[in-house]
Amino acid sequence: MVHSVLRRLAPEAAVVDLVHQVAPHDVRAGALALRRAAPWLAPGVAVAVVDPGVGTTRRAVVLLPRGTSEGPGRLLLVGPDNGLLLPAADALGGVDGAVALPPAEYPAVPALGGPGGGEGVAGPTFDGRDVFAPAAAALAMGADPGGLGTWVDPSTLVPGPSLGSRAVEGGLLVEVLWVDRFGNVELGLDPAELEGTGERVEVDLGGNPMTARRVRAFADLAPGELGLLTDASGLAALVLDRRSAASHLGLAPRDDVLVRPHYRRA
Amino acid sequence: MVHSVLRRLAPEAAVVDLVHQVAPHDVRAGALALRRAAPWLAPGVAVAVVDPGVGTTRRAVVLLPRGTSEGPGRLLLVGPDNGLLLPAADALGGVDGAVALPPAEYPAVPALGGPGGGEGVAGPTFDGRDVFAPAAAALAMGADPGGLGTWVDPSTLVPGPSLGSRAVEGGLLVEVLWVDRFGNVELGLDPAELEGTGERVEVDLGGNPMTARRVRAFADLAPGELGLLTDASGLAALVLDRRSAASHLGLAPRDDVLVRPHYRRA
Amino acid sequence: MVHSVLRRLAPEAAVVDLVHQVAPHDVRAGALALRRAAPWLAPGVAVAVVDPGVGTTRRAVVLLPRGTSEGPGRLLLVGPDNGLLLPAADALGGVDGAVALPPAEYPAVPALGGPGGGEGVAGPTFDGRDVFAPAAAALAMGADPGGLGTWVDPSTLVPGPSLGSRAVEGGLLVEVLWVDRFGNVELGLDPAELEGTGERVEVDLGGNPMTARRVRAFADLAPGELGLLTDASGLAALVLDRRSAASHLGLAPRDDVLVRPHYRRA
Repeated sequence: MVHSVLRRLAPEAAVVDLVHQVAPHDVRAGALALRRAAPWLAPGVAVAVVDPGVGTTRRAVVLLPRGTSEGPGRLLLVGPDNGLLLPAADALGGVDGAVALPPAEYPAVPALGGPGGGEGVAGPTFDGRDVFAPAAAALAMGADPGGLGTWVDPSTLVPGPSLGSRAVEGGLLVEVLWVDRFGNVELGLDPAELEGTGERVEVDLGGNPMTARRVRAFADLAPGELGLLTDASGLAALVLDRRSAASHLGLAPRDDVLVRPHYRRA
Repeated sequence: MVHSVLRRLAPEAAVVDLVHQVAPHDVRAGALALRRAAPWLAPGVAVAVVDPGVGTTRRAVVLLPRGTSEGPGRLLLVGPDNGLLLPAADALGGVDGAVALPPAEYPAVPALGGPGGGEGVAGPTFDGRDVFAPAAAALAMGADPGGLGTWVDPSTLVPGPSLGSRAVEGGLLVEVLWVDRFGNVELGLDPAELEGTGERVEVDLGGNPMTARRVRAFADLAPGELGLLTDASGLAALVLDRRSAASHLGLAPRDDVLVRPHYRRA
Repeated sequence: MVHSVLRRLAPEAAVVDLVHQVAPHDVRAGALALRRAAPWLAPGVAVAVVDPGVGTTRRAVVLLPRGTSEGPGRLLLVGPDNGLLLPAADALGGVDGAVALPPAEYPAVPALGGPGGGEGVAGPTFDGRDVFAPAAAALAMGADPGGLGTWVDPSTLVPGPSLGSRAVEGGLLVEVLWVDRFGNVELGLDPAELEGTGERVEVDLGGNPMTARRVRAFADLAPGELGLLTDASGLAALVLDRRSAASHLGLAPRDDVLVRPHYRRA
């Protein structure tokens, strides 16, 4: 229905689906998925909706990422103010401005066949269709973000999930950010932080240390051998060749992993 | 393949995917999904295929919904005559006309690499590709529906699923229409029918009465509290905040629920 | 992300999703899915990625299928040289030419927000985004395939999966090619090979012979009756009406089935 509304209100706009596999209510997973995609987005408007607070007073916002907020390469972000958009904006360089959208008046989009689709008036449970898509369509047609609502101070935006590694005694404590459909385990760890640790690192999942070999490609690994490679987002990932490292290691998003240099035992 | 055929025969048409999650052969679920989307459709042609009777004498039809059958806002429905299209047409105001399409001649769409894709002649098991997509493409290019087949009396169309509430002793007997991916339970009940019942209603799933509080948004509910809200289609829905009401209540589409005013016990 | 990159590099190109349900690393299933779709593809560029060898020295290639490699109907295939593309090319008439693409330089596509998406440099694990999509976009914009890489001898391409039936004592040994979402069992068998066997055939799944009736449509079958029909790709398929033949028979892709004429027992 979001696609339909975009088509009605911005008939010339091309629409690309980024991801539909985020679990219900998992704002963190949605924020990370959008952040992974952000550097490769085409100019336009990215709409994101993981929105357990729909219908409450949580704000609906348009974010203007630094350096992409104007001109033919303009890229804007639209969605709820619940931390979903900020990691992507940060990956693009930070937030230059933010606009809060007014709540939908119902029917927000003139429905065919009478208000609310011939059933009576729709409830305020689908801001993707009723708030975000109309705003995105207007922006795609060239509207000025400020004309759609009220400028707000970006420092008042709800922050995104905290990520990144933390130095602890004996290593780096890093969080699992994502398990892709192949079972590869993306860590919140820039491989540059592993510089100087050599060809192997030790990964400890709670008292259970294992060795991972740093490789460039999945196929560089022997069958069953645990690897650590730089994934397509530039992050460290634990992998096996043609098998699920997540299943093998029993890891899921939000789990902590301790990564440390590998010392050959005497 | 339906997309590919549309692209070959109507290269300028934009194609929007509405829903691909209908269970095999579940015409009722498909009809309800199309009806939910209908009021928000952009002008064009909606193709629907849930088609256990493919290859038999069941008719393939184009429906002209009332008030949308002509002009730049023309919206037509294409699919099997098995009840799949009628609820959507009804949501749009009823049917103004209907055209029965002739069966495909094989290959219906000139296949590259020889007839039937180089494998021999394709069987008549995929009317989405071979009948509905070519008809939709022709209509998207501006074809007159009557030119594609034979006008038929709309009263001869196979009726859609029966829906809606039924007054019984002590309340309204309503059917579960849909469980969305969040586990929200959409009922065949216009919330206006609950007027005057107060802030709470009783829902009875076969001798097991529970109280639901009428709320506006999911987040208005306490953890684990059952709510009844007006959903995005304007229908009553049983919900929990960030949990599946369907799992909690053990409800699935086609189940019956008795809804009645809540009387505080003495 | 592949869509995003295509949109950035070929803004006017329309993109159609063919299939996203191939199991991880199942090159054979991907090759068969592309081959099923091939005869119905619109002119353009088909990108396929099932790519366990990503990041190794396996080649990335553009294939020019016979008869579709030039002019307004030009249809090209882009993907890894691992057998994924050849069956589709064969279905289109064979391969007229092949070009090997150079490896991506990172970042292959200028990422917004700095190299590798602000995370550091992306690893070579996503050639769909970094190699195949940029090549497809260039071809969609009219580029000459040879300008993107090096012409290679088509006979050096990694062959696709072997398919087709094999005459054995007492019948034809055929492989299950695909089980669709309805549970229909597509066989590697041209129905023409069954000519003269009459209305029924015997199918033997390892010492367990069953009779299948040759029908035209699913609905021609009685409840629970096993049927054999010509499917939408022109291949023989084992089916039940509104039930999964795969579940009923315990069949999965790559299983062997012995098909033979049915002789009424005395």
